[in-house]
Amino acid sequence: VDLYGDAGWAGFSVEGVARRAGVGKASIYLRWPTKEALLDAALAASMANIPAIDTGTVRGDLIELARQLLDLYLAGGGRAAMRLGLDGAVVPPEIRERHAALGRSQILAARGIVRRGIRRGELPPSTSVTLLLDTLCGGAMMHATSTPTELRDRVVQGAATYAEKLVDFLLSSLLTSAAEG
Amino acid sequence: VDLYGDAGWAGFSVEGVARRAGVGKASIYLRWPTKEALLDAALAASMANIPAIDTGTVRGDLIELARQLLDLYLAGGGRAAMRLGLDGAVVPPEIRERHAALGRSQILAARGIVRRGIRRGELPPSTSVTLLLDTLCGGAMMHATSTPTELRDRVVQGAATYAEKLVDFLLSSLLTSAAEG
Repeated sequence: VDLYGDAGWAGFSVEGVARRAGVGKASIYLRWPTKEALLDAALAASMANIPAIDTGTVRGDLIELARQLLDLYLAGGGRAAMRLGLDGAVVPPEIRERHAALGRSQILAARGIVRRGIRRGELPPSTSVTLLLDTLCGGAMMHATSTPTELRDRVVQGAATYAEKLVDFLLSSLLTSAAEG
Repeated sequence: VDLYGDAGWAGFSVEGVARRAGVGKASIYLRWPTKEALLDAALAASMANIPAIDTGTVRGDLIELARQLLDLYLAGGGRAAMRLGLDGAVVPPEIRERHAALGRSQILAARGIVRRGIRRGELPPSTSVTLLLDTLCGGAMMHATSTPTELRDRVVQGAATYAEKLVDFLLSSLLTSAAEG
């Protein structure tokens, strides 16, 4: 996952993984016959889909979603997830599908959160899942990736606080639309 | 820029560019002695920094910024810009610096917009440039890149409309904070 995050599909090879892991190529081929199978297994182990989230309030749900997105993008799997978004046209179908499933899990989680928020009267019925998801996921991704390496520890430590700030910022927008509507 | 967007630094070579452009390697080496020089020149020609923006209103400024970001990410240079964000540790310093300059130009443009918005009384003095930039840039990036290839034309056509929706969504949040503060 590290090598893929660093180099993308164009730079990914069983030989490169063997070198970085300090093992022989043969040991890898014993378990994974191709580089496709190797990368697919590595991504499956490191890039969990976003589960359904239901904390009881829309604010709690969105903070949990923001935290999971920050965890994803700040952990080793984050650069791999972003590489996948760019490698869509060149990776094999099973790996493209893994990335599509991650994207669908984010949309499903966000839709569930918004639907329950509307049902509980916390959000206006006109709430745009698309705008909310673009700004929440995009904001989390931007925050996680625009940080220089030397400040990364500080961003990891501050992730929970940032998740709250980001959600309160977006939520005040949703609630204003409610007041106006 | 296309090849770099597709393959990143690990898959970028003068040979690959020559093949895709249908020219001989020698013709390329005549003008650009190394792959570093070739990529740097290509990025300089395709990935413009965000200029200072001053339309007279904070809404007008933010819409213009959102449009420029959508143009950047939807055009050929967009995938290259995202690759650069991931390739930071492996590309040569002059190319890393080009990406850093693009990031700085976004921050400078956003700071200018927020500063003038506060001075004109359109925004609360507590406005967070970081949250605004994360959600505006992140939202534009997410919107431009999460679209399947077959829907890309529709997203390009709808970019100006999306820029307005995105800005009005974020602006209503900033103005709520103003009312509360």
